[in-house]
Amino acid sequence: MEISLDCLPCFLRQVLEASRMATDRDDLQREIMEEAIKLISDYQKFRCSPEIGRAIHNIVKNYTGISDPYREIKIKSIKSAEEVYPFLKHFLYRKQDKLYWALKIAATGNILDLAIYSNVNIKKCIEEELEKGFAICDIKRFKEQLKNARSLLIIGDNAGETVFDRVLVEELFYLDITYAVRSEPIINDATVEDAYISGLGRYTKVISTGCNAPGLILEECNEEFLNIFTNVDIIISKGQGNYESLSDQKREIFFLLKVKCLVIARKIGVDVNDYIFKWNGLI
Amino acid sequence: MEISLDCLPCFLRQVLEASRMATDRDDLQREIMEEAIKLISDYQKFRCSPEIGRAIHNIVKNYTGISDPYREIKIKSIKSAEEVYPFLKHFLYRKQDKLYWALKIAATGNILDLAIYSNVNIKKCIEEELEKGFAICDIKRFKEQLKNARSLLIIGDNAGETVFDRVLVEELFYLDITYAVRSEPIINDATVEDAYISGLGRYTKVISTGCNAPGLILEECNEEFLNIFTNVDIIISKGQGNYESLSDQKREIFFLLKVKCLVIARKIGVDVNDYIFKWNGLI
Repeated sequence: MEISLDCLPCFLRQVLEASRMATDRDDLQREIMEEAIKLISDYQKFRCSPEIGRAIHNIVKNYTGISDPYREIKIKSIKSAEEVYPFLKHFLYRKQDKLYWALKIAATGNILDLAIYSNVNIKKCIEEELEKGFAICDIKRFKEQLKNARSLLIIGDNAGETVFDRVLVEELFYLDITYAVRSEPIINDATVEDAYISGLGRYTKVISTGCNAPGLILEECNEEFLNIFTNVDIIISKGQGNYESLSDQKREIFFLLKVKCLVIARKIGVDVNDYIFKWNGLI
Repeated sequence: MEISLDCLPCFLRQVLEASRMATDRDDLQREIMEEAIKLISDYQKFRCSPEIGRAIHNIVKNYTGISDPYREIKIKSIKSAEEVYPFLKHFLYRKQDKLYWALKIAATGNILDLAIYSNVNIKKCIEEELEKGFAICDIKRFKEQLKNARSLLIIGDNAGETVFDRVLVEELFYLDITYAVRSEPIINDATVEDAYISGLGRYTKVISTGCNAPGLILEECNEEFLNIFTNVDIIISKGQGNYESLSDQKREIFFLLKVKCLVIARKIGVDVNDYIFKWNGLI
């Protein structure tokens, strides 16, 4: 999807946050910010928001020499998610429509980073968020497609959320599942290593997409991923970043996400904070 | 106070909001945004945040030819405040410490713009906010100074909030009160016209500071204002913008505001959303 003007202030906010995670030096933070301002003044040269996101976060990496400023946050997210995992399983155990709630659990994993940043009680926060239903839910279509499906591709999003995805994967154990993640650390997005630490290796084939942007840019993906993307029976794309880069694709995709900003909310026609499980095909 | 890096994304967000109020033309909004990005890349040339704020909002004025993009919002704010005014008076009537709550009412007026933007139930929102006390309250010092004071200068902030200030002014009717406002429309800040429409002319001498920034830059103020600023017995400065430009002043000032962002919260040592009535003098 097109880059919205609303994304520009948001990128500056993000780069400041990342620079503070990577260094305590004020002078470096200032230089990073000045470089980021230069970069966003050229925003029209980029194809989509995740592409700017990558460039912006590369500035932080280059100026500080730290290749993974979010490493600690990611480890903390996975650890917190593992602590909540038994509760997630018990929550699901009590539900009738297990597939609906397994999808909802996977979507809810997307709030983990916000919860960790803001230092709230994570379990309580997750409990509250879990009970909220989807604002859009194309589960009927999903269930129909599952009848004839043998393979599933999940395009992952954040580290930590990966543990929540395991709950969904365990519900769909009978499928041949591929879990695809970023090729390199970018923001708090999951890499192959993070997916393995999250226990996804036991239930899925974990692969790198070949793309290191915080959203899936197909033109940059490797052959292995593109093969699966083209031939797999069902695709679930997780999170806003992947939605931004894939929403105009003709390939049928189910988008599973929590809407975190007004740009995406307007595009989908829902409210910020809504949960979405949306099929992009035509009925 | 120094310009924080956190202010830069916030300026971009503000200018986008203002450009959308002033024009529906996408191309103009893009040009304004590009010009604003250029401007914030030079942020170190500015003395304080209100100075950047003015420059940023001047871009909107120049590109759209609209000198007061917030005119409608301001009129709506004053109208909403007038509707709430009887409730404010009744609220105060029930309170023991009238001065404390009159100050609190004046501080609470600062949320009016947020309430109007977000389309919440304004009266309900005001009711809830009014009951919250101050996180810092130097009222003891204020009451002491009132014993020998004959004159008061209030440096105003937003239109609409002006009506709430009238409640405070009515409690301090026995003083010779000057109410000073921006020399020209800037964001939703009150001008002389707004102050008169808000009924302040009946109780105070309304003057222009001579400064058209969204915060008081003393070097730009007119002689009339500076004379009062120097010689008046007590000064109350309202809102974040005035705090940003005046917080390093040696002149004794009582700052009355709601803390709306993390930069100000950190500087004062309180939380975002806290209400403050803070004296800057030494004990």
